Amino acid sequence: MLKIVIFGTGNLAKHLYTAFLKADDVDVVQVIGRNVKELQHFSEYSNISNDFDAITDADVYVIAVKDDAIGEVSKYLSNKKGIVAHTSGAIDMNTLQSVKKGVFYPLQTFTKDKEVDFSNIPICIEADHEKSLNTLKSLAMSISKNVHQIDSEQRKKLHLAAVFVNNFTNCLYSIGEELCLEEGLSFDLLKPLIMETAHKIQTMSPQEAQTGPARRNDIKSMEGHLELLNKKEHITLYKLLSQAIKQAHEKEL
Amino acid sequence: MLKIVIFGTGNLAKHLYTAFLKADDVDVVQVIGRNVKELQHFSEYSNISNDFDAITDADVYVIAVKDDAIGEVSKYLSNKKGIVAHTSGAIDMNTLQSVKKGVFYPLQTFTKDKEVDFSNIPICIEADHEKSLNTLKSLAMSISKNVHQIDSEQRKKLHLAAVFVNNFTNCLYSIGEELCLEEGLSFDLLKPLIMETAHKIQTMSPQEAQTGPARRNDIKSMEGHLELLNKKEHITLYKLLSQAIKQAHEKEL
Repeated sequence: MLKIVIFGTGNLAKHLYTAFLKADDVDVVQVIGRNVKELQHFSEYSNISNDFDAITDADVYVIAVKDDAIGEVSKYLSNKKGIVAHTSGAIDMNTLQSVKKGVFYPLQTFTKDKEVDFSNIPICIEADHEKSLNTLKSLAMSISKNVHQIDSEQRKKLHLAAVFVNNFTNCLYSIGEELCLEEGLSFDLLKPLIMETAHKIQTMSPQEAQTGPARRNDIKSMEGHLELLNKKEHITLYKLLSQAIKQAHEKEL
Repeated sequence: MLKIVIFGTGNLAKHLYTAFLKADDVDVVQVIGRNVKELQHFSEYSNISNDFDAITDADVYVIAVKDDAIGEVSKYLSNKKGIVAHTSGAIDMNTLQSVKKGVFYPLQTFTKDKEVDFSNIPICIEADHEKSLNTLKSLAMSISKNVHQIDSEQRKKLHLAAVFVNNFTNCLYSIGEELCLEEGLSFDLLKPLIMETAHKIQTMSPQEAQTGPARRNDIKSMEGHLELLNKKEHITLYKLLSQAIKQAHEKEL
C-alpha cells in the first residue's frame, strides 16, 4: 500500500484525489492546503490540514498547486524521506527542494465538476533515482494504463504542444462561436464538426487529415473569407494559419 | 418517395449516397460524374452515367462537385423541373443556373473510407421558393435530425467559422505533432487532451472553457514557451493566439 499526501485543493488535486481513492493499492493519508473551505471536499475519507508544519509521513508527496508555489511548498518537505513529486508540465524537477525528487504530470485538461476517466490519460513521470521512478510508476499505473517516463526538457516541450492543441484550439473555437453569433447562428451548429475534427486525428496524422482552402491553395475561397472577417486579429490569424497550412503542403500542389 | 440524382463522385457524394440509400423515402435514381472509375462505386444500387446530357428526371438534383464546377454543372439542369441544390458552404445559391434553386449543405468534414453517422450532422438548407424549401427539408430530415434553414450570407459566415474550428484547429494539431516529434515523443500523448478539449465545449462555452498561461496572463510561462519554439511562424502564432485569448479575458484579470 502506497501512502500519499496531496498538496493543493484545486481542480487537479480534486480529480487526482478521486482517482486515488478508487485505486486499490493507494491510501491518501492526508490532504494539505491553505484554503480551509476547499479542504472540506477531502475530509470524509482523509485527514485534512492547513498547517504545512503538520505533514503526515508518506511514500509520495504529490504537489498539485500553482506552478509559482511548487518550490515554496517543497521547502516544507525538505526533511521528509518520501518522494516529493510535482504535477506540472512546465516546471523543472529540480525546482523541488527535497531529498527525493519526482514529477507526476497527468497530460489532460481538468474541469471543475466534470468527471474524468483517468485510465487513458497519459501520466508522464520522472525521478532522480531509479527506485523513486519505480514507485511513481506504480502510483501512476494504479490510476492509468498510459504511463510514460519523460524527462524535464521533453515535458516542457510536451506542455508547450499541449498549449497549442488545447488552449489555442479552444481560442479558435471561441472565434468560431463569435462568427456564428455575428450572424445570429447557434454555436451548436459547429459542435459535430469540432468533435469529428478531433476524432479524425485519433487514427490519422493531422498532416494527412488537413483539408480546406489553404491546403488546396484555393485563393478565390481564401479571398472571399478574408472579406467576411471584420476584426483585424482574425484577419491576421486567418492569413498566418493559411500560410502555415500552405507551407506544410507545398510539395503536394 | 423523393427521386434524386447526385452529381459528383468524391467523398461528399459517396457519404451522401450511403446515407440516402438507408433513408426510407428517398430513391437515388442516378449518379452522374466524369470519373468513370469512381462511378462504379454507385453502380450496384443506382443508374450511373458520365453523360451530362442523359440526366434522369428527379425531384431533387444534388450537386456534390467542387465549388468551381457548380455553376457549370447546373447549366445542364437549366430545363429541369426538379430542384437543383448544391452542397457547398461557400457558394451563393444564385450561382445555380436552373429554374428552382436550393442549397443542401451538410456541415461536417468527410473522410474517405471513414463512415459517418448523418443523424446528428447539421444540414443547412436554403431555397428560392417555399415549396422547394419544404422538399429539401424532407430530404434533409430523411437522413438527419439536425436541419436548419440558413440563407447564403449566414452560410458563408458559417463556412468561414468551420474553417477556423476545423482546418485551422487541425493545423494546430499538426504543430503539436511537430513539437512532439522534435523531442522524440509520440503524438499519441496529446490525443486524449485533444478529445477532451473538443468534448468540453459540447456543454460549455469556449469562452468559459478557456484555460492556459494567456488566460491567466502568466507572462513567465509564456516567455518560457517562446524560448522553446524554433520556427518563426510558430512564435508569431503563439504570440497572436495568446494575445487573442488575453484580449477576450482582459476584464477578468
